[in-house]
Amino acid sequence: MTLLADLLSTVFERRFAARGGDRTDTRPLPQLCAELISARGEVSGLALAQSILARYATLDDGAKLEFFRHLAHQMTLDPAEVRDALDAYETGQTKASYRAVMRAAEPPRQELIRRLNQVPNATAILVGLRADLLRLGRGDEALMALDLDLRHLFASWFNRGFLVLRPINWATPASLLEKIIAYEAVHAIDSWEDLRRRVEPPDRRCFALFHPAMPDEPLIFVEVALSRGIPGSVQGLLAEQRSILPPSKADTAVFYSISNCQAGLAGISFGNSLIKQVVTDLSIEWPGLKTFVTLSPIPGLRDWLSSEGIDPDAADEAHLRALAARYLTQARHSSGRALDPVARFHLGNGASVHRIHANADTSPKGRARSAGVMVNYLYDPVKISQNHERYAAQGEIAMSADVRSLAAAAEKTLA
Amino acid sequence: MTLLADLLSTVFERRFAARGGDRTDTRPLPQLCAELISARGEVSGLALAQSILARYATLDDGAKLEFFRHLAHQMTLDPAEVRDALDAYETGQTKASYRAVMRAAEPPRQELIRRLNQVPNATAILVGLRADLLRLGRGDEALMALDLDLRHLFASWFNRGFLVLRPINWATPASLLEKIIAYEAVHAIDSWEDLRRRVEPPDRRCFALFHPAMPDEPLIFVEVALSRGIPGSVQGLLAEQRSILPPSKADTAVFYSISNCQAGLAGISFGNSLIKQVVTDLSIEWPGLKTFVTLSPIPGLRDWLSSEGIDPDAADEAHLRALAARYLTQARHSSGRALDPVARFHLGNGASVHRIHANADTSPKGRARSAGVMVNYLYDPVKISQNHERYAAQGEIAMSADVRSLAAAAEKTLA
Amino acid sequence: MTLLADLLSTVFERRFAARGGDRTDTRPLPQLCAELISARGEVSGLALAQSILARYATLDDGAKLEFFRHLAHQMTLDPAEVRDALDAYETGQTKASYRAVMRAAEPPRQELIRRLNQVPNATAILVGLRADLLRLGRGDEALMALDLDLRHLFASWFNRGFLVLRPINWATPASLLEKIIAYEAVHAIDSWEDLRRRVEPPDRRCFALFHPAMPDEPLIFVEVALSRGIPGSVQGLLAEQRSILPPSKADTAVFYSISNCQAGLAGISFGNSLIKQVVTDLSIEWPGLKTFVTLSPIPGLRDWLSSEGIDPDAADEAHLRALAARYLTQARHSSGRALDPVARFHLGNGASVHRIHANADTSPKGRARSAGVMVNYLYDPVKISQNHERYAAQGEIAMSADVRSLAAAAEKTLA
Amino acid sequence: MTLLADLLSTVFERRFAARGGDRTDTRPLPQLCAELISARGEVSGLALAQSILARYATLDDGAKLEFFRHLAHQMTLDPAEVRDALDAYETGQTKASYRAVMRAAEPPRQELIRRLNQVPNATAILVGLRADLLRLGRGDEALMALDLDLRHLFASWFNRGFLVLRPINWATPASLLEKIIAYEAVHAIDSWEDLRRRVEPPDRRCFALFHPAMPDEPLIFVEVALSRGIPGSVQGLLAEQRSILPPSKADTAVFYSISNCQAGLAGISFGNSLIKQVVTDLSIEWPGLKTFVTLSPIPGLRDWLSSEGIDPDAADEAHLRALAARYLTQARHSSGRALDPVARFHLGNGASVHRIHANADTSPKGRARSAGVMVNYLYDPVKISQNHERYAAQGEIAMSADVRSLAAAAEKTLA
Repeated sequence: MTLLADLLSTVFERRFAARGGDRTDTRPLPQLCAELISARGEVSGLALAQSILARYATLDDGAKLEFFRHLAHQMTLDPAEVRDALDAYETGQTKASYRAVMRAAEPPRQELIRRLNQVPNATAILVGLRADLLRLGRGDEALMALDLDLRHLFASWFNRGFLVLRPINWATPASLLEKIIAYEAVHAIDSWEDLRRRVEPPDRRCFALFHPAMPDEPLIFVEVALSRGIPGSVQGLLAEQRSILPPSKADTAVFYSISNCQAGLAGISFGNSLIKQVVTDLSIEWPGLKTFVTLSPIPGLRDWLSSEGIDPDAADEAHLRALAARYLTQARHSSGRALDPVARFHLGNGASVHRIHANADTSPKGRARSAGVMVNYLYDPVKISQNHERYAAQGEIAMSADVRSLAAAAEKTLA
Repeated sequence: MTLLADLLSTVFERRFAARGGDRTDTRPLPQLCAELISARGEVSGLALAQSILARYATLDDGAKLEFFRHLAHQMTLDPAEVRDALDAYETGQTKASYRAVMRAAEPPRQELIRRLNQVPNATAILVGLRADLLRLGRGDEALMALDLDLRHLFASWFNRGFLVLRPINWATPASLLEKIIAYEAVHAIDSWEDLRRRVEPPDRRCFALFHPAMPDEPLIFVEVALSRGIPGSVQGLLAEQRSILPPSKADTAVFYSISNCQAGLAGISFGNSLIKQVVTDLSIEWPGLKTFVTLSPIPGLRDWLSSEGIDPDAADEAHLRALAARYLTQARHSSGRALDPVARFHLGNGASVHRIHANADTSPKGRARSAGVMVNYLYDPVKISQNHERYAAQGEIAMSADVRSLAAAAEKTLA
Repeated sequence: MTLLADLLSTVFERRFAARGGDRTDTRPLPQLCAELISARGEVSGLALAQSILARYATLDDGAKLEFFRHLAHQMTLDPAEVRDALDAYETGQTKASYRAVMRAAEPPRQELIRRLNQVPNATAILVGLRADLLRLGRGDEALMALDLDLRHLFASWFNRGFLVLRPINWATPASLLEKIIAYEAVHAIDSWEDLRRRVEPPDRRCFALFHPAMPDEPLIFVEVALSRGIPGSVQGLLAEQRSILPPSKADTAVFYSISNCQAGLAGISFGNSLIKQVVTDLSIEWPGLKTFVTLSPIPGLRDWLSSEGIDPDAADEAHLRALAARYLTQARHSSGRALDPVARFHLGNGASVHRIHANADTSPKGRARSAGVMVNYLYDPVKISQNHERYAAQGEIAMSADVRSLAAAAEKTLA
Repeated sequence: MTLLADLLSTVFERRFAARGGDRTDTRPLPQLCAELISARGEVSGLALAQSILARYATLDDGAKLEFFRHLAHQMTLDPAEVRDALDAYETGQTKASYRAVMRAAEPPRQELIRRLNQVPNATAILVGLRADLLRLGRGDEALMALDLDLRHLFASWFNRGFLVLRPINWATPASLLEKIIAYEAVHAIDSWEDLRRRVEPPDRRCFALFHPAMPDEPLIFVEVALSRGIPGSVQGLLAEQRSILPPSKADTAVFYSISNCQAGLAGISFGNSLIKQVVTDLSIEWPGLKTFVTLSPIPGLRDWLSSEGIDPDAADEAHLRALAARYLTQARHSSGRALDPVARFHLGNGASVHRIHANADTSPKGRARSAGVMVNYLYDPVKISQNHERYAAQGEIAMSADVRSLAAAAEKTLA
């Protein structure tokens, strides 16, 4: 398909490229952008859009910043124009006056991005452009305002209804598997053999979400282990020598790694959809599965312990578990949400804090950030909605009786 | 795939459906909508969105209108809120103040529609909802303002970069072919045999554009005849008994029927993309093709002749061709664009008026609207961009020398 | 794929066609055949094989017969050669002497057919060739001996392990559906609408077996109705106006039409495989299905009644059912098998005679052959193997108590 | 598909498995085999065939040999029966008497193998069974006679018309790519990175032949380099650091590695088909390709030099090339064919000996067998048929003028 798409766009370009639209168009980018959003660009904009994207691909970071600043300052909204349109709208609420408000209130760069997206494969390029913007523009208010427009468009384009869940396994194209290796962000995959251990055995599964316009690029993926009972360490899950469980005998699905793949889609959340769809898929395939949990790091634990004056390496296991329980269930962000970022994600999805394990991730990274402690968040289909609601409304964190006792114990200790 | 999607959504629903989210949710639609766009809806909105869409499917026209009015009046934008946000933005142009403007300037119904689109197959349902709105709301300013929001979202969702061109032929699923029969809007297809004559012979081709989220629904399609030379009547093209031309001997591709399929996508133009992609595809497949023309009706011709006091049935062929040339190249809309709607479409795409044929469509419809006359618009890849530009900027209509002479002859006659 | 295959073979031919191998090769067919099975043909035989098949396609029936006679008489086995090889083999049973027997005992025409099959799409052509042979050679012992070789090869090529079951429904390509219309041999399909009623509703299913080398040609197909209880007439099943049953409420699958599609595969039985695979497929999809029956014609009934001196049009319903029961369970072929050909097929598969219905097929064909009577054969997975064995070994026909009583009643009547 | 097939066979088995047919059937294998080829096996043989294959999978080598001996001695042909049938046939050449000869002349084990092949995935298992037989039975005349039957059946099943050519590239499933790594027999692939260098760059291609019943198992594959001019060493081709050539600039396709994958398909030649189809495919894709050559080892060179009393390590380059030319073009097998096995393959396909390069494969294996020398065989579509014919008929070896001079020079030296 990619070959064909390339062929098509090549032929198209050769046949339709106009004076102002071929790849060697040397006019300044701002001029090309202005032309693309003009009436002319509405019909014959494909070659023009190709030129702009091709030119962008050749820019160094300095030139990219300059381009972003042009979009930020010259193609932004004009408050006076919006006010005028609002005046007219309030005078007479008609289709025409409403349209005028909508036009004035949408900065022209949004239409520019939509027209750039006509080009085959443009979506991935534009996602990359936003990644550049986030990298280069951090801290610049005007550039971050520009980013809001990109994010707004992407939220529409990557609407959940357009995404497709696909299993990743040993029959997946190598070109995609190497991206899984590259994008894994929780427990690094260090070789093709390591990858195979995570996707080939019948009790190991992996799923990714894709957008049809970027079929070669996963947006997010999750690695799952099927087990009997809830496992308490990632070392066990990833051991080279382990016995494989026939999936029909599994009662638990463990989500032990969730990785976002696209820096350019930051802030657009796919994790909640992914987890629920995978729960659904696995439930159909293996009706014996009754429990859906994560096995998650607690990346803010060591920092929080330090801030509390506690050295985790000196604490015993029982103590450490209690402190982790307290951190997860009591430590809050100024917003009232959980302090730990991974906790925030799962609690926001309606999960509960279910079990806590010390010495559960003995990798250097696991020790350095989570003090070796891991936690199971429980996704209980029956309670997920209620949990979410109470957390969203009152900041109430759902937890098991076991975790509640641990947290209480910690409280005494700290007191 | 559809089966699987249904299965998934069924299971999901069974497992995740919360108190307020199952299909038998009996609360009023406005309340469900309010909940869906609340924070709670952000995470657990799937069941809620399903409820709303399922409820919508049961409404009669009166209840639909009531629902549309709710969206139009209760979920529209609040000018005061926009003004406040603009004030703050002008005081300090920060990311936060920009976000506040964007939020205030987007009516909540847009977010509602995006969240409804989470449900599998929702896109097609929402396109149907807009078709209902256009049917029921015509003439109501507030409802037409609501329509602008739908159109705005759909323009983003149905961005050209997301569309897929697929050939339609005798190996296409029957379920899709029956839609081609139903949607054909120019020269009606009266049986499966008639359809077969248009898609099976090697010198007859058909192509449609699709969106990945509506794989069973064509958005627009075009029927093409490959020929030697430019044909001058549609009767010849569609004759039951005709000799089939090996495509390798064809030098001309004739676009003799273009039909939009989705009333709910009115105002979102796909025709220009479709024609250019088909030209590209056919050029790769059959390098011998040198000429790309339409064979088009002139639906406004008879009315215009009447307005000029001319009875076409009394005119001879030569006269009629000259009058048609004049109509196509001189008669203008108040906007300066061509008066004839089909001419407007092709000239806007950069085509030129190439040849005019009398007695070219002798069907009742062809006689009644086009006085039996048809026209070839020429898509010349080399001139398409220039033609478009001159037409857009100065209203200049490109035409062949032949048509120019015809129009001049008519001028004398009329004078 | 077909397009590509054609392209490939065209290019290949152009590049590799040798002196003796292009399509315009004018040497006599026997000479081409001799060359194809020579050592030379082993390596460069593709063009040669193409020539032979292309030539065959142009032959009239007389020339085909001549060609078949050449194969029958000049490319048959040589008993003397076999005897010599057997002598040597009995002297010393070595690999070499065994190979010599095998070679001598296989007529050269078998290798010819295998080499013809190198050409893309040759398999379908060779199946057509056998259909010609059966049509033209009937009654000629030498040609029927030639046919045994074709049948032997086809039994190997169309081995059950190579066949693929595919559902046929309203999403099936029209080019395939029109073949279903053409091949239906039991209850004629008289229009696309009639076809749609048999494949589109959720309680109507159709399945066909295919060979990978003939992906556009079904080998055999079965039409199935899902119902509550066992239906007693085909008119009811095929009624235009009927209420559709949700498949989840069905407890019975009714195989009401089984059609072989390829005259050239006569004598190679697919029906048993087809039925068992469809039972398996449906059981997985709809676990509520408990009963698998046919609704079958009794094509030999009227003739048998005549031979017994009975006029079925004068008999009452009860009488007619009893006579049919007797015919199905008592009337035997000289081989000991059931006299009725449809009964022979299903009993041979291990089914039992389950229920008999009068006025169950009121079509002219149904009246003319089956006297309007139909029968349900029951496929009971638990008993299928035992039934088959008893029928094969002792000619014992399995039947329900109901049918047994009917047959006994008829006996009294006849006596 | 595999999952579904497994499911199907599981359900089928559960529902249809009869007394004598489930996996735990404990009767001796010979008894199961006898039952499978009986009349009963014709209809209900699937479960029986599954039992036999499942049992075979558990056998150790000794038990396998015992099973093979049973097939070899108890299920072989009976010469007396063949003679009787021949007598009857010579008395009256009828369809029936011909059928009797065919039946008698085919040992019952052939029908056994065909019936075993009913089981899903049986084909791959049977190919494995033959690999076992070749490994364990070598030298045993009766077992090698049994092997002839397997080979005969497989030649029919793996008929060229049934095979499918598929490109292998970086988008191929990892499960297939790891088989390419494992099966590569000429220039070992030592890592996934090495593999990627051979299949991912646009000027490196790989193609494999598959049978539809074994979609996960390549039968044979070829690795191709696209280049300008004919390369003279494999080190250059496989270098980690090399510049990649845009395929549109290539004029030569180099087949530098051809590997057979299935020991159980020994003696059934796919190489000739593969090369010709790949030549065809590449010609369509890249019309600029004019020259198709191999870059091949000369595995018998060092041994032959030794037998001539020459130490290749002491010879200079020019000398070595001359000696290699002489070896390739003069040294003959007792059959009159070329002595070198790789030469035999390519000359048999109609290629010519085109160029010879010293120091062209400096790997240990290349030095040890080919004395570092490599040869280009030229596949010239225009001459391929003539070359093949002359080689097959008169043993005449086609060669370039250059190679002819080299060989002549060597003659003088040796003299």
